[in-house]
Amino acid sequence: MAFSEFRPLDEKSLIDYIKAVPSLSSKLGNNLDGLKIKEVGDGNLNFVYIVVGPAGSLVIKQAIPYIRCIGESWPLTKERAYFEALALREHGRLSPEHVPQVYYFDRTMSLIGMRYLEPPHIILRKGLIAGIEYPLLAEHISEYMARTLYFTSLLYRSTTEHKCAVAEFCGNAELCRHTAQVVFSDPYKVSQYNHWTSPYLDRDAEAVREDNVLKIEVAELKSKFGERAQALIHGDLHTSSVMVTFESTQVIDPEFAFYGPMGFDVGAFLGNLILAFFAQDGHADQVNDRKTYKEWILRTIEETWNLFHKKFIALWDEHKDGSGEAYLPSIYNNPELQGLVQKKFMEDLFHDTLGFGAAKMIRRIVGVVNVEDFDSITDASKRADCERRALELAKFLLKERRKFQSITEVVSAIQNLHAI
Amino acid sequence: MAFSEFRPLDEKSLIDYIKAVPSLSSKLGNNLDGLKIKEVGDGNLNFVYIVVGPAGSLVIKQAIPYIRCIGESWPLTKERAYFEALALREHGRLSPEHVPQVYYFDRTMSLIGMRYLEPPHIILRKGLIAGIEYPLLAEHISEYMARTLYFTSLLYRSTTEHKCAVAEFCGNAELCRHTAQVVFSDPYKVSQYNHWTSPYLDRDAEAVREDNVLKIEVAELKSKFGERAQALIHGDLHTSSVMVTFESTQVIDPEFAFYGPMGFDVGAFLGNLILAFFAQDGHADQVNDRKTYKEWILRTIEETWNLFHKKFIALWDEHKDGSGEAYLPSIYNNPELQGLVQKKFMEDLFHDTLGFGAAKMIRRIVGVVNVEDFDSITDASKRADCERRALELAKFLLKERRKFQSITEVVSAIQNLHAI
Repeated sequence: MAFSEFRPLDEKSLIDYIKAVPSLSSKLGNNLDGLKIKEVGDGNLNFVYIVVGPAGSLVIKQAIPYIRCIGESWPLTKERAYFEALALREHGRLSPEHVPQVYYFDRTMSLIGMRYLEPPHIILRKGLIAGIEYPLLAEHISEYMARTLYFTSLLYRSTTEHKCAVAEFCGNAELCRHTAQVVFSDPYKVSQYNHWTSPYLDRDAEAVREDNVLKIEVAELKSKFGERAQALIHGDLHTSSVMVTFESTQVIDPEFAFYGPMGFDVGAFLGNLILAFFAQDGHADQVNDRKTYKEWILRTIEETWNLFHKKFIALWDEHKDGSGEAYLPSIYNNPELQGLVQKKFMEDLFHDTLGFGAAKMIRRIVGVVNVEDFDSITDASKRADCERRALELAKFLLKERRKFQSITEVVSAIQNLHAI
Repeated sequence: MAFSEFRPLDEKSLIDYIKAVPSLSSKLGNNLDGLKIKEVGDGNLNFVYIVVGPAGSLVIKQAIPYIRCIGESWPLTKERAYFEALALREHGRLSPEHVPQVYYFDRTMSLIGMRYLEPPHIILRKGLIAGIEYPLLAEHISEYMARTLYFTSLLYRSTTEHKCAVAEFCGNAELCRHTAQVVFSDPYKVSQYNHWTSPYLDRDAEAVREDNVLKIEVAELKSKFGERAQALIHGDLHTSSVMVTFESTQVIDPEFAFYGPMGFDVGAFLGNLILAFFAQDGHADQVNDRKTYKEWILRTIEETWNLFHKKFIALWDEHKDGSGEAYLPSIYNNPELQGLVQKKFMEDLFHDTLGFGAAKMIRRIVGVVNVEDFDSITDASKRADCERRALELAKFLLKERRKFQSITEVVSAIQNLHAI
């Protein structure tokens, strides 16, 4: 059974589909009796089926031509599945331990067959809400970010390779446009899709819309997002795009991937950890005051940046005599100059990270699609208090990001604001 | 006679070619008797034939797969003709009065048939060496730059249109790579192609190669050139890419066109005017001390930027409620904010302009391919004096560009350095 045109699958037609595709059925040991199929409606965009049989398992992810959590009123090309498969394969090649394997891709059907991340893998955001510490998270995610960002940049690649890859991912324009809208535009204007904890945050949302300094800074970040093809970024690296166990960290869902600024990925991850931090007071109860857990989150924020910095520089040093065309060894030819150049590069990347991270935080509090970290706090007044602190920190980071010299200073700013 | 594969034409085969192409022969009034054909070897890269008949005229430009002025040892794809034709048509659509019309393009032959810019049109650089004032130059070139850069940016276009156009011009990667090499790399290292007025500037060239601060700043500009798809830039907008009469200003030769930073074009033009200024003392003689002409050049530098600024902002204001996605009117919704945003944008563009302009100056003094402005000064010692002053100014501008607030300050810096 080959499908010559797109049609959305359901639990039943999915089995027929798998039967017809040897590279999928072989992952189930060619034994399709007694398959258990479960659609997991976590995501905002797609349909995801977990398929488990007696001799194997896999996941089938199918894109539909609109945003699932909003409906057909917000169309979004299903071609995103093509770019997701491309990015999974490219990032998987660069960081195989942290990206699930792609078994099969069907462009007509916008369908990816891939590894099932078996239990106890859960979405990181849910782990953060539950107060679970992941001792290897910073180590793993920094490894993933350093490798995927370094190796797809001009630090490692020639201009010719880079332009060719950039051109391919320009095809994912509609998804870029969506991100630009929800992150850099909607929160700063009246939009039917915006949502916040009302009436508590009404005045705060209004203040965002009226903050000229904030809007000027956001415009600069938006331009960088739209124009700067620095590396193949995941494009949506928040804590629901990461699945974890104590030993494993897996990055999923790169349908927003394109060549953009590195800081957008690093910032998305750190910004969502900061959101998780500010949500903890809403999850505290008499059994667990979350004090120790908040310290772990702050430590993880600090370690993630510091390890990313270390690994990124190590890759740069290792390959500095390679084919990358940004810094030719015949020009940057002494350790002192090499050190200065790297310091400047990482400072700029750090400030981008803080800016993009802050913008991602703001959009999760007063924009479309809020986060479960806060939404799961049932007491609206308490939730609003948590959100307001996070929002204040984000505004401060976004405006003053160039004054920060180290991640330790960021953690101090978080602690200071939290203590108020 | 259709050519199924590339072959370089000569004066004789050119006639047969034109005969076989109706859209070319019709431009000659279909009268090919007594054609005068002249190959004009001005350029560094291509073959250019002027074809004049009794009933019409045209220019045929053919790219060959290497750099003409260097030879087959430096290959350069002849596909550049495709991007030149694309850019001529796009820029011609946006600024028809300042871009010659394309009559015909043959991708297989890497051949463009276009309007012949009849006498008294000459290459601007030659006019500057001859000390000729062009009263409309600043008005015209600022018009060309403002329109081509504004309308191909996200200030005017949607993300989707922009990404699509960016992707197409990524195909011109080899030409981008060439520019990156000769502008941002070669002058800062020992390279067989570098050339300067030796022995006078030996120490100056060495100083460029040993200047850590300069090399760090150049790396930042190189990254911006390689990564930032801000607008469809000409890519080589020096004073030999402009043909002029007292009434007409025509921009030619955009084979290096791609989506890059706007400041690269504006800087190329202003930087080459500054080179022309510093060359004047070498052209002065007892008949003409060039004093008045130097003042005209400085005035033209100032007017070019100021008019560009004015026209660019006027286009932005005119189309601020259009489909451009960088600054949505619902966010940047009051005159004060609009003014602040424009001020910041133009400041950043000004600093880019100074940085790129300075880099273009440096490469013309100690890199590959020097400029006739200086080369035509026969006294080597005098030439070196002129070049050294230009080089010192360029280094200063490149390092300190962020401190300049207006073009008047730049002109003062030029005058100060010139007076030493």
